[in-house]
Amino acid sequence: MDPAQLAALPDGQDLRLARGDALFRAGDPPLGLVLVHRGALELRRVSAEGRLIVLHRAGPGDSFAEASLFEPRHHCDAVATAPSLVTVHAAAALRRAAAADPSIGWRLAAHLAARLVAERARAERLAQPRAADRLLDALHALPEDDDGLRHLGRSWKTLAAELGLTHEATYRALARLERAGLVRRDGRGGVRLAGPPA
Amino acid sequence: MDPAQLAALPDGQDLRLARGDALFRAGDPPLGLVLVHRGALELRRVSAEGRLIVLHRAGPGDSFAEASLFEPRHHCDAVATAPSLVTVHAAAALRRAAAADPSIGWRLAAHLAARLVAERARAERLAQPRAADRLLDALHALPEDDDGLRHLGRSWKTLAAELGLTHEATYRALARLERAGLVRRDGRGGVRLAGPPA
Repeated sequence: MDPAQLAALPDGQDLRLARGDALFRAGDPPLGLVLVHRGALELRRVSAEGRLIVLHRAGPGDSFAEASLFEPRHHCDAVATAPSLVTVHAAAALRRAAAADPSIGWRLAAHLAARLVAERARAERLAQPRAADRLLDALHALPEDDDGLRHLGRSWKTLAAELGLTHEATYRALARLERAGLVRRDGRGGVRLAGPPA
Repeated sequence: MDPAQLAALPDGQDLRLARGDALFRAGDPPLGLVLVHRGALELRRVSAEGRLIVLHRAGPGDSFAEASLFEPRHHCDAVATAPSLVTVHAAAALRRAAAADPSIGWRLAAHLAARLVAERARAERLAQPRAADRLLDALHALPEDDDGLRHLGRSWKTLAAELGLTHEATYRALARLERAGLVRRDGRGGVRLAGPPA
């Protein structure tokens, strides 16, 4: 299930946020499931010792605060880090609708299962100690066009941040993969991948 | 929702696996939602170019293959990497039960939402380029007992692997955090954390 299908859930309300606006704060009663259309939000909390921890960075097409549907309070703050447009599906209304219509919980579960698969794959990728392994797995995860070309869809700098690498480490890893013949950069801003040497 | 509640889902069947046994293979029709009680399984697939990619490592208390409930085929192999005991909730039976009982999809969604929150937090932690930051966030995420002590619940070596760090890098980062006064190791195999310097 993709966000477009989730958007067909009942009782959605569109909200615009300025940079720095909080959508909710830790301790607030649950607002509901949030879909991001434009902009960027951070879910963060401050540990007992005063350390700021970012739990999630949500961009266009992402959902978040799903767990709040099932809990009495938010456990983190949601703050816009750029001007943003979101849809909020109110928790109480969604809960009532789901009690009457079994397809709602099932569709929600389908959406969450797809997000979980993607996040697990991301975490496994990030758990690889070698920068070249992380980068190669991330490139393999990119969709391939009919011509065998994979498009980054973002800058190398953004990809580096997603991989928990510095810009420099990413370029060094890319150069290593190119020398090994595993990755070929294409002039059109994409890459081609080769299989491991036979 | 915790795995104990998920285990109350209908039509569970217990299965024992030897090391190397495949529970399912990519392309198989969906087996169902799997709960791991003992042992370890890897979800993996081979990319078009022949590269083995591990999508998920599941241990006791984990669930996996949730997405297969909503899809016509498995997209990866599930292989036991140790002797394992799992419960499988058959996809077709669960789908039928969920169409009649709205609480099933909702409980499944609650379970998936909790798993998603945990995986997102793990990925954010892993995305931090500095080993000391990753380690400190992982320590902050540990539950604290009444006495302010946090228990690893696993070896430093296992924690290192989860953080995508070598054993050596983890010990260096730990030493750095101790010197900075942010972490104190406790003789009883736990740690105490301090706030950032005022």
